[in-house]
Amino acid sequence: MRPVKIGVLGLGTVGGGAVNVLRRNADEIARRAGREILVVKASARDLSRKRICDTQDIKLTSDPQEIIADPEIDIILELIGGNTLAKDLVLQAIENGKHVVTANKALIALNGNEIFSKAGEKGVMVAFEAAVAGGIPIIKAIREGLSGNQIEWLSGIINGTGNFILTEMRDKGRNFEEVLAEAQSLGYAEADPTFDIEGIDAAHKLTILASIAFGIPLQFEKVYTEGIAQITGADVSYAEELGYRIKHLGIARNTPRGIELRVHPTLIPERRLIANVDGVMNAVLVKGDAVGPTLYYGAGAGAEPTASAVVADIIDVVRVLTSDPENRVPHLAFQSDSLADIPVLNMEEVETAYYLRLSAEDKPGVLADITKILATHQISIEAIIQKEPVEGEASLPVIMLTQKTLEKEMNNAISEIENLQTVSGKVTRIRVETLG
Amino acid sequence: MRPVKIGVLGLGTVGGGAVNVLRRNADEIARRAGREILVVKASARDLSRKRICDTQDIKLTSDPQEIIADPEIDIILELIGGNTLAKDLVLQAIENGKHVVTANKALIALNGNEIFSKAGEKGVMVAFEAAVAGGIPIIKAIREGLSGNQIEWLSGIINGTGNFILTEMRDKGRNFEEVLAEAQSLGYAEADPTFDIEGIDAAHKLTILASIAFGIPLQFEKVYTEGIAQITGADVSYAEELGYRIKHLGIARNTPRGIELRVHPTLIPERRLIANVDGVMNAVLVKGDAVGPTLYYGAGAGAEPTASAVVADIIDVVRVLTSDPENRVPHLAFQSDSLADIPVLNMEEVETAYYLRLSAEDKPGVLADITKILATHQISIEAIIQKEPVEGEASLPVIMLTQKTLEKEMNNAISEIENLQTVSGKVTRIRVETLG
Repeated sequence: MRPVKIGVLGLGTVGGGAVNVLRRNADEIARRAGREILVVKASARDLSRKRICDTQDIKLTSDPQEIIADPEIDIILELIGGNTLAKDLVLQAIENGKHVVTANKALIALNGNEIFSKAGEKGVMVAFEAAVAGGIPIIKAIREGLSGNQIEWLSGIINGTGNFILTEMRDKGRNFEEVLAEAQSLGYAEADPTFDIEGIDAAHKLTILASIAFGIPLQFEKVYTEGIAQITGADVSYAEELGYRIKHLGIARNTPRGIELRVHPTLIPERRLIANVDGVMNAVLVKGDAVGPTLYYGAGAGAEPTASAVVADIIDVVRVLTSDPENRVPHLAFQSDSLADIPVLNMEEVETAYYLRLSAEDKPGVLADITKILATHQISIEAIIQKEPVEGEASLPVIMLTQKTLEKEMNNAISEIENLQTVSGKVTRIRVETLG
Repeated sequence: MRPVKIGVLGLGTVGGGAVNVLRRNADEIARRAGREILVVKASARDLSRKRICDTQDIKLTSDPQEIIADPEIDIILELIGGNTLAKDLVLQAIENGKHVVTANKALIALNGNEIFSKAGEKGVMVAFEAAVAGGIPIIKAIREGLSGNQIEWLSGIINGTGNFILTEMRDKGRNFEEVLAEAQSLGYAEADPTFDIEGIDAAHKLTILASIAFGIPLQFEKVYTEGIAQITGADVSYAEELGYRIKHLGIARNTPRGIELRVHPTLIPERRLIANVDGVMNAVLVKGDAVGPTLYYGAGAGAEPTASAVVADIIDVVRVLTSDPENRVPHLAFQSDSLADIPVLNMEEVETAYYLRLSAEDKPGVLADITKILATHQISIEAIIQKEPVEGEASLPVIMLTQKTLEKEMNNAISEIENLQTVSGKVTRIRVETLG
């Protein structure tokens, strides 16, 4: 059979990695796919820049249009990133009858519904394994490997930078700003690290995971997002004292009242496997009604791990080129005409347990005032740690673990506690999940 | 489109579980597969036996031939187990043009080459995700999710009974025989637990994983297998003292000299994620050249987890029914005409590090004799623990960790050490893997 021809848009880290893997493993790939896979053209903004890959036998151009219009090309790799130029190019490529493989989570989370609908009309495939958790085949695991299950919930460490920061804070007692600066100098975090530490990047990925898990349209705008910048070294050690680790989790849960979609720092019992996923590594824990809990772990970013997912997608596309489009694996796991209209819950309606930390005056009756407020909101306390006052300070830290309650009850309780004369400053609140 | 019709051979734990999951999740499954999936017939040896599933609308028979000959049936689920009757029925079903889904690891490990060759001739699919690690989609992850990689090695906890025993020994300081008896009474281990504790069951699964990882034919007879019955509570605590956990691992590694295939107790550094996989849970760690290390974790047995994999396979088969057989995912990951003829190494040629435990007289020069023997065989010592002699005993335990060496060198060194006048009894040897 004739080789399958690939055109690459974007020759940066991921594009260069994909070209390298396709070259280095060409023999194994052909043995698996049954056909040779050749990169014939690639586009880059600046053709004079040094590449991490060998571009011999690849026609380079600065005009991506030249690639998506080429009738010889079967599959387009969109590895530009962002969701402006990338979106236009992907939609045009589909219009031209090309299959598309992309690593672009923002593009899929924000424009996936439109892109998949167009792909459906044209009978082409859009594959996006690399968009979530880098090299971990998590899209495939949920969409195909667990397809016999009703997915009850999933929970993931899906941003390596954030996990690196939290790991360093715990392992070495370093503070947030210091570790963030190191992450930036190591190239883990962008110069503007907002997407990582504010949880936007994780929210993009969670949007995609929730769609394929529950069969709902992509709804990025409904994800509740909270970053890790307010986590202090003290929180990390108090959590440890209570038997927990703090992780920045993306959580999606199908409850009888609707779907929870949330990204926030979370306390997890330290014996859970996912609590022990450290450094830049990613992991996703998925609970299916038949299979029970399953976990998928690996590198969530980097040239070669991401290329691993891109190349797997190419091979998938090649393998099903001959199948009737109606029978291919649907983009969002469920047939496009049977996505469900389950509501996504407002964060106020979500129920979790909480870790609270506050500063209170060292006076009789203070704790009674606080616990009374919690009681009026039907919030039960699981554990309290009261620290000795620090020399020369009038107030002392109080740390509490609560049982499950609605977020809106907790919001109200926290405002009332912050209004107490005897409590100074804000209450730090971190949600707790047992993931059991 | 008309419903896909399923015939089930065997209505025990797995068969009953599959019928239950197909019924309970019928809506979600149809939303994913785009077609209704119906179990129309099932066979069981004893029709009077009580079932874990509702058999309403399923025609029951004690004659499996009636199912595999039924022209209405598209897919046969082989859930009988064993490799005598099951083998004949699967081959006949394929001959009759049926697709087959099976959970039978012995069947695939021992007869897979013949079965896949026959399936190739007839253009039908044989799916076997449930044969390895129960509900974990590990076949799919390696065969499709990591298809861009050269797999360097994989290492798995792929027998839940063995892992339960080792976990209980460590957590509760119990001894092997006692925990084994409990595992049997809990129904984890068979009345004859040989397959579990001697590593035969793990060797079946490792045979399958190695084939799809490296693109080699199934070669069960070449797997080196060692059980866990000789592990003592003392070994478990010495390992812990050295910073390790003991796990019963299946290991497959592609080395420049050939492929290692081995199942044996193994010391693993305690900070590795896989060292923390406890109880009856399974996990497989796979190292690809592009993706790096990835890990897959979940329930390795039980009615519903196994059914999860069986149903996913059914949906896969349904989804690719319309594709050209030449383009489907190959049974052993690589095209059948391009399986590689890489030799499987004899265990003597395998290189690992070792944990050694022996009893030596409490006399000067004893340790010197032992270390001299190791030195003649070019074996370097990484750590030694010498325990205080136990009151009233003439000998004392010596524990050593060595660096990597060839198994044949270690075999020779151990015989020489056992021949020393000052050493009593056998040397306990457990292999060490850093899995880094």
